[in-house]
Amino acid sequence: MKIAVVPGDGIGREVVPVAESVLRHLHPDWDYYPVEVGFGRWERCGAAIGSGEMDALREADAILFGAVTTPPDPDYRSVLLQIRKDLDLYANVRPVRGPGFSVTIVRENTEGLYSGIEWALPGSACTLRVVTDGGSRRIARYAAALAENGLMTIGTKANVIKSDVLFRRCAIEEAESAGVRWEEKYIDALCLDLLMHPSRYNVVVTTNIFGDIISDAAAYLVGGLGLLPSANVGDSHAFFEPVHGSAPDIAGRGIANPVAAIRSAAMLLAHVGHADEAAAVDAAVDAACAAGVRTPDLGGAASTVQVGEAVLSRMR
Amino acid sequence: MKIAVVPGDGIGREVVPVAESVLRHLHPDWDYYPVEVGFGRWERCGAAIGSGEMDALREADAILFGAVTTPPDPDYRSVLLQIRKDLDLYANVRPVRGPGFSVTIVRENTEGLYSGIEWALPGSACTLRVVTDGGSRRIARYAAALAENGLMTIGTKANVIKSDVLFRRCAIEEAESAGVRWEEKYIDALCLDLLMHPSRYNVVVTTNIFGDIISDAAAYLVGGLGLLPSANVGDSHAFFEPVHGSAPDIAGRGIANPVAAIRSAAMLLAHVGHADEAAAVDAAVDAACAAGVRTPDLGGAASTVQVGEAVLSRMR
Ligand SMILES: CC(C)[C@H](C(=O)O)[C@@H](O)C(=O)O
Ligand SMILES: CC(C)[C@H](C(=O)O)[C@@H](O)C(=O)O
Repeated sequence: MKIAVVPGDGIGREVVPVAESVLRHLHPDWDYYPVEVGFGRWERCGAAIGSGEMDALREADAILFGAVTTPPDPDYRSVLLQIRKDLDLYANVRPVRGPGFSVTIVRENTEGLYSGIEWALPGSACTLRVVTDGGSRRIARYAAALAENGLMTIGTKANVIKSDVLFRRCAIEEAESAGVRWEEKYIDALCLDLLMHPSRYNVVVTTNIFGDIISDAAAYLVGGLGLLPSANVGDSHAFFEPVHGSAPDIAGRGIANPVAAIRSAAMLLAHVGHADEAAAVDAAVDAACAAGVRTPDLGGAASTVQVGEAVLSRMR
Repeated sequence: MKIAVVPGDGIGREVVPVAESVLRHLHPDWDYYPVEVGFGRWERCGAAIGSGEMDALREADAILFGAVTTPPDPDYRSVLLQIRKDLDLYANVRPVRGPGFSVTIVRENTEGLYSGIEWALPGSACTLRVVTDGGSRRIARYAAALAENGLMTIGTKANVIKSDVLFRRCAIEEAESAGVRWEEKYIDALCLDLLMHPSRYNVVVTTNIFGDIISDAAAYLVGGLGLLPSANVGDSHAFFEPVHGSAPDIAGRGIANPVAAIRSAAMLLAHVGHADEAAAVDAAVDAACAAGVRTPDLGGAASTVQVGEAVLSRMR
């Protein structure tokens, strides 16, 4: 198994090595290789990622990613967006779990308002929201497979936006043909109801920017982005990253919380066929947390490395 | 003063009369006239609103609106959206107040993804997100006037969408020229932070669909949509409505909570120059609530009419 390891910037450089050590503990024989993207590369070469790095990512069976800092360049195009598009990582999967609920937000990751089709006219600017039949069906199939015996909630604004009428129709048809129970809600009402009654939800599938917003809103249920892992998955590539950013304010002090990165590594394990190991990693993280081994953001005094050690010792 | 009164459907027919009685109590001499729009009209005439009703709304100095039920017609176009567009009600204003915070969400109400410019191609559907310089500036000026001594937070996705680069630039320029303190945040992060730290916010200004979503998310802070009023304001017309819908499930039982409608009437009063009366209405609502006169949704046993009476008696 070839694993591209991309710490990126800021606390990415602190939490990714911890997550990598968890993978190495379970699979010392896999091929781990570093890929440098982000601010550092941008400072050196004027681009946060180049075609060499993109090729290196393409060769991996899975990518473990940290976070990147946005350079002060108005024309800068997000590394994340480039990777998602170039590797066709069409499913952005964000599980949010807390006491009494377990919701997975499945966000279409390649089209919608992120089409990149934009133009300016005198006095106005337009962005084209593109929804395709194929794009909608594949994300709906992905979500339906995750929902299996649960419920698939389809979030749209089909009461206003015709492109969401297409998305909704495709999602319903795919849910039906997968034999998955579904419901549909307008995204505004869904945001509110998900906050009020998270236990009523299982898998939520929605378009790109609505998924962007609702997954941040849902993070409120677990006290913020700090602990949340994510997967960006396509048919040929898969990319795992903590939802949090590079946090320049605390970078370099060894106190960043590695839990989201470790849980992202667990998602990687599950993705490549080791669901049992993924569950063991998550359980070790829970046990370490419960034993009070926590970084300062959770009120503890442990360092990034100490949390990693506590997780590893529970896996041994 | 000419006030168009539009109960609409469902509980709109129960809460609007209560809100109207509050206005009549303060201003018995104003001209109140009913306008019928909504499901009932759609059943009779095949359209939820006609040009006669639109003219009647246009003649009003202010419109007091309830809620409408969506007819089961795939080609149905929302009455709300028609009114917003036809009367150019460009500012959708939603105050959300709770213990220790007071946030007003100001949503651009005429363009963005609600442009209505959409088309289908084989296998795909497109919606054009239109942001204009003029549209962005007028909503930013509106928000800046509300923010005055406070903070104006500009919510965009300018890190991804070029049309939001225009919105952001216009909003910042208008805030600067109004001498208002501003900050900008990405809408996903803003949704989360508004939930986590509502007291850090004062006025939030954003584009149409982001405002739609963030105002529902913010409703979580006050336990849902039930108590929230709103104003839809343009340069020539103004429209006030509770944020909740027509609630067919409880309609006709006399138990709907009239607070959001009464508070919408208070916003109407403030809009036509009676800020003192608006404050008095809000205080009477608070006092009635505090005295335990509450509808079942708030755990009480009062009827719609009893809550109205309790508010009126405190205003006398
Ligand atoms: C950084 C930004 C481009 C990105 C997005 O909008 O998708 C982020 O918000 C996310 O959710 O991963
Ligand atoms: C009913 C719908 C058309 C409307 C909107 O999208 O604006 C509603 O959600 C609102 O927020 O007033």
